[in-house]
This record gives sequence, C-alpha cells and structure tokens, in this order.
Amino acid sequence: MKPIHVGLLGFGTVGGGTFQVLARNQEEISRRAGRRIEVKAVCRRDLEAARALVGDSVNVVADPMAIVNDPDIDIVVELIGGESVAKDVVMAAIAAGKHVVTANKALLALHGNEVFAAAQAKGVMVAFEAAVAGGVPIIKTLRESLAGNRIEWVAGIINGTTNFILSEMRSKGLSFEVVLKEAQRLGYAEADPTFDVEGVDAAHKLTLLSSIAFGVPVQFDKAHVEGISQLQAVDIKYAEQLGYRIKLLGITRRRDELGGIELRVHPTLVPANRLIANVEGAMNAVMVQADAAGTTLYYGKGAGAEPTASSVVADLVDVTRLATADPDHRVPHLAFQPDQVQRIPVLPMSGVRSSYYLRLRVADETGVLSRITTILAENDISIDAVLQRESFEGERQTDLIILTHTTVEERMDRAQEFMQSLPSVLAPIARIRKEDLA
Amino acid sequence: MKPIHVGLLGFGTVGGGTFQVLARNQEEISRRAGRRIEVKAVCRRDLEAARALVGDSVNVVADPMAIVNDPDIDIVVELIGGESVAKDVVMAAIAAGKHVVTANKALLALHGNEVFAAAQAKGVMVAFEAAVAGGVPIIKTLRESLAGNRIEWVAGIINGTTNFILSEMRSKGLSFEVVLKEAQRLGYAEADPTFDVEGVDAAHKLTLLSSIAFGVPVQFDKAHVEGISQLQAVDIKYAEQLGYRIKLLGITRRRDELGGIELRVHPTLVPANRLIANVEGAMNAVMVQADAAGTTLYYGKGAGAEPTASSVVADLVDVTRLATADPDHRVPHLAFQPDQVQRIPVLPMSGVRSSYYLRLRVADETGVLSRITTILAENDISIDAVLQRESFEGERQTDLIILTHTTVEERMDRAQEFMQSLPSVLAPIARIRKEDLA
Repeated sequence: MKPIHVGLLGFGTVGGGTFQVLARNQEEISRRAGRRIEVKAVCRRDLEAARALVGDSVNVVADPMAIVNDPDIDIVVELIGGESVAKDVVMAAIAAGKHVVTANKALLALHGNEVFAAAQAKGVMVAFEAAVAGGVPIIKTLRESLAGNRIEWVAGIINGTTNFILSEMRSKGLSFEVVLKEAQRLGYAEADPTFDVEGVDAAHKLTLLSSIAFGVPVQFDKAHVEGISQLQAVDIKYAEQLGYRIKLLGITRRRDELGGIELRVHPTLVPANRLIANVEGAMNAVMVQADAAGTTLYYGKGAGAEPTASSVVADLVDVTRLATADPDHRVPHLAFQPDQVQRIPVLPMSGVRSSYYLRLRVADETGVLSRITTILAENDISIDAVLQRESFEGERQTDLIILTHTTVEERMDRAQEFMQSLPSVLAPIARIRKEDLA
Repeated sequence: MKPIHVGLLGFGTVGGGTFQVLARNQEEISRRAGRRIEVKAVCRRDLEAARALVGDSVNVVADPMAIVNDPDIDIVVELIGGESVAKDVVMAAIAAGKHVVTANKALLALHGNEVFAAAQAKGVMVAFEAAVAGGVPIIKTLRESLAGNRIEWVAGIINGTTNFILSEMRSKGLSFEVVLKEAQRLGYAEADPTFDVEGVDAAHKLTLLSSIAFGVPVQFDKAHVEGISQLQAVDIKYAEQLGYRIKLLGITRRRDELGGIELRVHPTLVPANRLIANVEGAMNAVMVQADAAGTTLYYGKGAGAEPTASSVVADLVDVTRLATADPDHRVPHLAFQPDQVQRIPVLPMSGVRSSYYLRLRVADETGVLSRITTILAENDISIDAVLQRESFEGERQTDLIILTHTTVEERMDRAQEFMQSLPSVLAPIARIRKEDLA
C-alpha cells in the first residue's frame, strides 16, 4: 500500500521526538502497520533549525495552514500546545477532511466537545493517546480494553512534576518551596510551574479520562482543582507514620445513587502498601476499578519526548489502519457512540464521599481531644485513628492528627468549622482527603 | 445496526462469566460498540445445567459443531481449553468463515502458527486477549499501544497460582509443599498443579507475548520452562535479606548481537523496590521495556471468571467493530503483517545473559571463600555481594550466599561445576537467576 503522509505542527520536544521515533523505527512500524508512515512536512517558526533536523526530503514551513491545506498530507499531528492557535489549526484540519493526532490535553479538556463533534460530522478521527500519561496507553485501555466493563472509578498520578516534588519532599524531608527550586533546576518543573503544581494539568487529563470512562461530555469547568503548593512537609511525615503516602491524584467516580460523577484533583493520602503509593519520581500510574476486570493499574513515563512520541506514533498507526475505513469500523472518540454520550452532571464537592486526614495544632490541656471527638461524633463522622504528638518540653501546644472513616464532604466542612472555632485550636486546621483505593 | 450473534463453546467458569458480563453490561457495551452483542447459543455437555443459567432465549447444544455450523452465528467464543477438541473446533469455525475469540493459551502457544495462517487465508479474526494475564490488556498494549516502539524485553508475573504460593512462602516462611496444599484448599491451585507450578502455563503465555513483541512465530517448543516446586524457603529468606524478592517470571528478550531471542520461565530474584516485586497473591503484572516508551507496567487479576470475561468481551467488541471491515483495516494477529513475521531463533539457555544468586553449603574452614571466588574470577564472573551466615555453635558448616553480576549462562554452568566439585562444598549448590529489570 502507498505510504501515508503526515504533517507535524509544532516541532519542539515532542515534535522532535516523534520525528526521531518514526525515523528510527520506520522499518519496525511498517512491519506492523503494513504501510510506511512518512513525515512529509513540519511546521516551525525557526525554519533553519527545523531544516537542520529533518533534512531535505521533508518540507519545512512556518505557517501551520500550509500543512493543513496541503492536499498531499493525510494526517495532521498537532503538537503546538495551548488553546488558541492549536484550536484554530485542529478545526481547520478537520474542516479540510484530515485526520488529527494530538497530545493537547488543554485543548481537548476545554474544547473537546466541539472538536469531536466537528470530527464526527466530517468523518475524520481525532486521536489523543499522548494527551494523558505520556507513554502509558490509558486512553486505548479505557476505550477498548475495558469496553465490556462498567467502570466504577479512575484514580491516577497523571502529573510527573508534582509526583517528583512529592517524592523528594518525602524522601528528603524538605519543604515544597525548596524542592520546587530543585525540580526547576533539573527541568522537571517549568519556570512558571502554576499549571503543574496547582493541579490544572492533572485536571485537564482527568477530564478526558472521566469522559471516556463514563461516556459523558468533557466538563473541565466543573472539575475541583487543588494542587500541592500549600502542602506542608510535616503532613507528609505524619502521614508516613500512620502508614500512608501523599500523592496528587486525579479521581473520577460514578455516584449512581446521586446520578452524578465526582471529578477532582487534590493531594490524597493513600495506604503505603498500595502499588500506586510506591510510584516515585516523575512516573505516572493510573488505577481503574471496573466491575468485571476488578482493579487494574497502568504505569510508565508520563512525559518526555520519546514516551509521548510512543503514544503519538501508536495513534498514527491506528489512524493509518482505519483512515479509509467506514466510520462505523472506528472506535468512537469518547469511547461511547456519539448519540450515546450522557449528560451526567459533576457533583459539587460538598457531595463527594471521602475520608480525611486532619492536623490540629491544639493547646496541651485536658479535654481538648474530647471536645474535638465530640464535634466529629455530632456530625456522624467516625474516627479511624488518632496520633497525638507529645508536646516538647516547655511547649504548651501539640499536634493532634486524626484519620476519619468515609463521610460526605459537607459534614466534614461543618465539623471543621466547629473545631476551628474552639479556643484550644490554635492554628488553621490542615485537612487532606484520604482514599483507600480498594 | 443489527445485533451480532455469538456462540459460546465451553460453559464453565469463564464461559459463565462471559455470559454474565454480557448480560449485566448489555446496555453499556452497546453504547460503546454501536450494536448489541447477543449470545445466541451455548455449548455444554450438561444441557440442563446450561439451560438453567441462560434461560429460554438462548439455544443450548451439546455438540460444538452445531454452533460452528450455525449460519446465524457470527463469532465463536472458544472457552473449552486444552488442545484437542478446542483445536478441531477453532479450525472448523475458521473454515466456516467465523471470527473466533479464545482464551486458550495452550492451543495458541502450540498451534498458533497454523491457526493464524488459516484465519489469515479465510479473512477472519482470531482474538486472544483473554489468553494472557486474564483481565490485564497486555495483548492489545503490545500489539497496538506500543506499535511505534522497538520492544527490548517483556518480563511478567503471568501465573497467579505460583505468585500466590511464592507470596505465602515469603510472608509466612513456609515450604512449597505446605503452601501448595493451602492453595489447593483455597482453589488457587488445581488438584494436579503441574501445569501451573512447573511453569508450563506461564510459558504458554510468554510464547504469545514473545511472538507479538518481536514479530516472530510462536515457538513454545523452544522455551526454557522451570517452575517453583524445587524452590527452598531458605532461599526466599536469604534473597529478602539481600534486598530481593523471588518471583516466577516469564522473560523474553531481544539479543540482536546474536540474532536471537531469549524465551524463558524460571524463578527470578528481583530488587524488592521494583513495583513488580510488590505484586502479591494471585495478581499478575507485565513489564515491557521499549525504546521510545521506556519501562511500562500493566497490573491486574490474571485469572477468574469475570476478569477473563472482561478480556473476552473486549475482543468481542473489537471483532464486532471490524467484522465486516476490509482485512487491511484489522490489526494483524501477531502484531506484525503476516509476510513480515521473521523466523528469529530462540537462543539456547547456555547463551542467555543473567546474573545469579548462589547458595553453597560449605565446610566452615579457612580458604573456602577464596577457592570459590577464584573459580568465579577464572570464569570471568564478577561478584556483586556475598552473605556468609555465622555457623551455629557446634556446626561445622555454613551457608555462603553469592550474588553475581551479569554473565553468560554457559560460564556460570562451568563455574558451578568446578565449585560443586570442591570437597568443601557439602551439598548441591542452589542457583537462581536474578534480573534487575532496569
């Protein structure tokens, strides 16, 4: 069969990695795909730099539309990132009848419904394995491998920067600020780390996972997004003493009894003996709970040129294989047939079910524990474990750590308000959600 | 679209699980697949028992050929197991132009080349996700998600029975024989456990993984197969003291410099801090090392009615989607196009590269360690760690544990022969391979 022609839009880290992987593994890929996948054009502002990398046989352009409108290009790979230019380019490519492969989670989390509807109407594919968890094939797994299941929840470490920072904070006992600087020096965190450390990047990815797990539209604007910048080293230490690790998890869960889903990113205590608690450094891992398969876990590199390129190329092979097939022979973009996507609402955080870690700085005086546990009991929150640090000599205050059993968040909000108002509680209460993932 | 019609051959644990999952998740599955997947017939010797489970709307037959030759059936699901009847039935189904889904690793490991060639000639699909690692989607991952990669090696815990036994031996310090009895009582091991504990089942599965990872024919007859029945509890204990766990791994690795592949199942020391070392009980996990994606790991339940059914149904959805597609639009059975499968030979064990754990029962006298280390040095085997137990009071012998660096197995064979012939070595040397999986 004749080669399929690819245009790469954006020729930075991932674009360069994709070009390299396609070139290096050309033979291996053709042996699988049954035809050659050839990069015919790349788009980059710095034409000379691009030309130096790709050689003479590849067309180098500065205007993405030159690729989008090139009749010789079958698949457009969008690796520009961001929402504005990338969206224009992807919509134009779809309008031009081209298949699209993208690693752009922000674009799809914010505009996925519009993008997929346009692709559907035009009969083209938009593939996005590389948008979530880099080289870990979690999109295909949820969409195809677990197609026989009713998926109950998905919980993942889907941002490498924050997992690197949390791993370092734990192993070295350092503060967030110190480790962040180190991560920036090593290239694990950007100069402006907000998107990563405040959980936005993870929430983009979680939005996509939620959509294909449950057959719902992407609804990033409803996600609860909480990062790690406020996390104290002392809480990592106490969690460890209680047998837990703290991870930034993206969690999405069916709540059929309320007719909704949970969609939330936040630091989370996880039992230290769970595999996912032992995912260290910049690695990613996603757990899926499904009714037939039970618990499965998928682990690997969540970022970087070649792991991300691995997923881009997997999509290229899929798209190549089905490029000329009847759309009925393709996997639906959001796992479920377009007319079967259901508008299930995201629940407000007040309705989320979770257990909690609480750290209270309290006056070291009789009756404090009793007053606090009474408040919890009055709010129907039962206690799983208590850790009371001995107060240092001369100190008149101490840390009281409480782990609760599962409750509804609005109860915890109310209880926390009462506890905070006690004169014996001397500082703002630290509260972190806790998930057993069992 | 009109429903697709399925016939289930074999209605035991997995057959029953498949029927149940299809019935329970009928709506969810149709929302994904775009059409209903309906079981129209089941085959079981005990007609009454089957009828009691499936009700009146499903045809119950005792003769598998009645389903194979039923013009109303589109996909035949073979869950009979074993090689004789199952092979006849699968070949007949292919000859009748039906697509096949099977969980039968023995059939495919032994007769896969013949089965896939027949399917290819007839233009039908034979899908087998359920044949390896139960509910863990490792077949699709290797075949599709890693299609852009050159795969370097695959190493997996792919037999739940042996992993359960090894977990129990370690955590409770018990012998193989005692734990096997317990596993049989709990239903984790069969009355005749040979296939599991001697590594045959793992080798069947590894054979399939090797084939789709490297694009080679299935060549089970060349696999090195070694089980856990000879494993001593003391070696699990010493391994732990040295920072390792012992797992029954299936390992297949490219050895381009020799133009061959390794294909071997045996007990293996793995560093205790690797995720795969912490896979406990009857769970399965497969690690894949690929040039672009790096290391990825896939974890879940490797057996049981519903996890296996999860993979059977995923295959049914795939086959349903592509049932009427041009064969070019389908994924090749062995990941690579049939004319691109390469006859790369399996290397003999003498050429395998590995590091080793050795336990020598030696006389407690001066010069023993020196004589042993000299033999290793003379064979170009370098030592990574030595653990010498103090001899008990009154004993004149002690255990000497040696971990080596990587070497070629024929060197280790030779060194072992020399060491074994020393008068100070008082018992047969225990030798276990060790893999860093880094």
